[in-house]
Amino acid sequence: MSARLDSATIDLLGVLAYGELTAFERLASDAQLAPSVEDKIELASMANAEFGHFVQLREHLVAAGIDPVDAMAPFVKALHDFHDSTQPNDWLEGLIKAYVGDGLATDFYREVSAYITDEATKALVLEVLRDAGQAGFVVARVNEAIAHDPAVGGRLALWGRRLVGEALIQAQQVAVERDALLELLVGSGDLAGITRLLTRLTDKHSERMASLGLSS
Amino acid sequence: MSARLDSATIDLLGVLAYGELTAFERLASDAQLAPSVEDKIELASMANAEFGHFVQLREHLVAAGIDPVDAMAPFVKALHDFHDSTQPNDWLEGLIKAYVGDGLATDFYREVSAYITDEATKALVLEVLRDAGQAGFVVARVNEAIAHDPAVGGRLALWGRRLVGEALIQAQQVAVERDALLELLVGSGDLAGITRLLTRLTDKHSERMASLGLSS
Repeated sequence: MSARLDSATIDLLGVLAYGELTAFERLASDAQLAPSVEDKIELASMANAEFGHFVQLREHLVAAGIDPVDAMAPFVKALHDFHDSTQPNDWLEGLIKAYVGDGLATDFYREVSAYITDEATKALVLEVLRDAGQAGFVVARVNEAIAHDPAVGGRLALWGRRLVGEALIQAQQVAVERDALLELLVGSGDLAGITRLLTRLTDKHSERMASLGLSS
Repeated sequence: MSARLDSATIDLLGVLAYGELTAFERLASDAQLAPSVEDKIELASMANAEFGHFVQLREHLVAAGIDPVDAMAPFVKALHDFHDSTQPNDWLEGLIKAYVGDGLATDFYREVSAYITDEATKALVLEVLRDAGQAGFVVARVNEAIAHDPAVGGRLALWGRRLVGEALIQAQQVAVERDALLELLVGSGDLAGITRLLTRLTDKHSERMASLGLSS
């Protein structure tokens, strides 16, 4: 344990780092579904950006005297379970997962980051949460696909809902097991604050779905 | 087409670039088979290094006025066919493919690079052919696995032979279709030169297999 970082901050860095590592794997593996070499390069670039974030988080943990693998360990199962239960069946589902799933996670982490007391950590977290290029690319590709075949929209809207459901299940699992992380959020405000947080997350999710031309 | 680079050099850059992109995908996807988070990080780092090489090759092509996707196009099928026919069944097979398969390809490209006339291209090719960290890591892991269960060695030796066989099949396909690339190699010497080249490639392959504790 580090004298500099409290256990909630270490938890946040751990879940973020493992999240970036699995995002890297997933984007790289979705790149294999790409319909063209250009699309493949686009996804591989995003994967690469996520891995760069992972390296930054790992270095930050090491510099604070914390073993990155230990910090990530409590979140390995939840992230694997999430990805196992949301394996995209095709290229478009993979794209939506990269945009909608990562978007939701990013919004959540950004909310939590408001409570980080260590300034260097907070700056790093906000930096790695910046969009790795997903938004523009995914919105364009999904809009094209729906314009080409409107029936696709219904299936993808269901997929978006499923992603949110599975994410909530895993978030709940983590919340039950990681007191410190939960307290960072809950301890910081009253129950009304949590409700407002959930509303903000839901609103942003709906905005993303709408930008894809999908109902949420 | 560029005034600066001849068609054989463009072919070499194209096959190398697509080779790096597929190596990236494959290593990232093998990272999912890793038995520990540390091993996963190791493979993800290698994947990332390969993607960095791809980016360098792409930039070099663009700077020479060549469309990278066009340059890669003739080699997409052969590389996909190779990877499809050599999907690792487990973590160890993936490691051996990363070391033995990439080693063979690297030796071949290095031989070809001797005939590149453009100095900037030659320097870049030799740079991207440097080991991305596979060798030490793979040798250590495979040696451990064989020490733990000697029977593994027989299966992995067969796997190594299969990789060479499939690589030769694809190389032959490419050679038939890409005259320029073939002439770079064949036109440069007599038939005895080609035989010596094959002997050098085979010797290095046997050395790699031996370092893994496997018969070739």
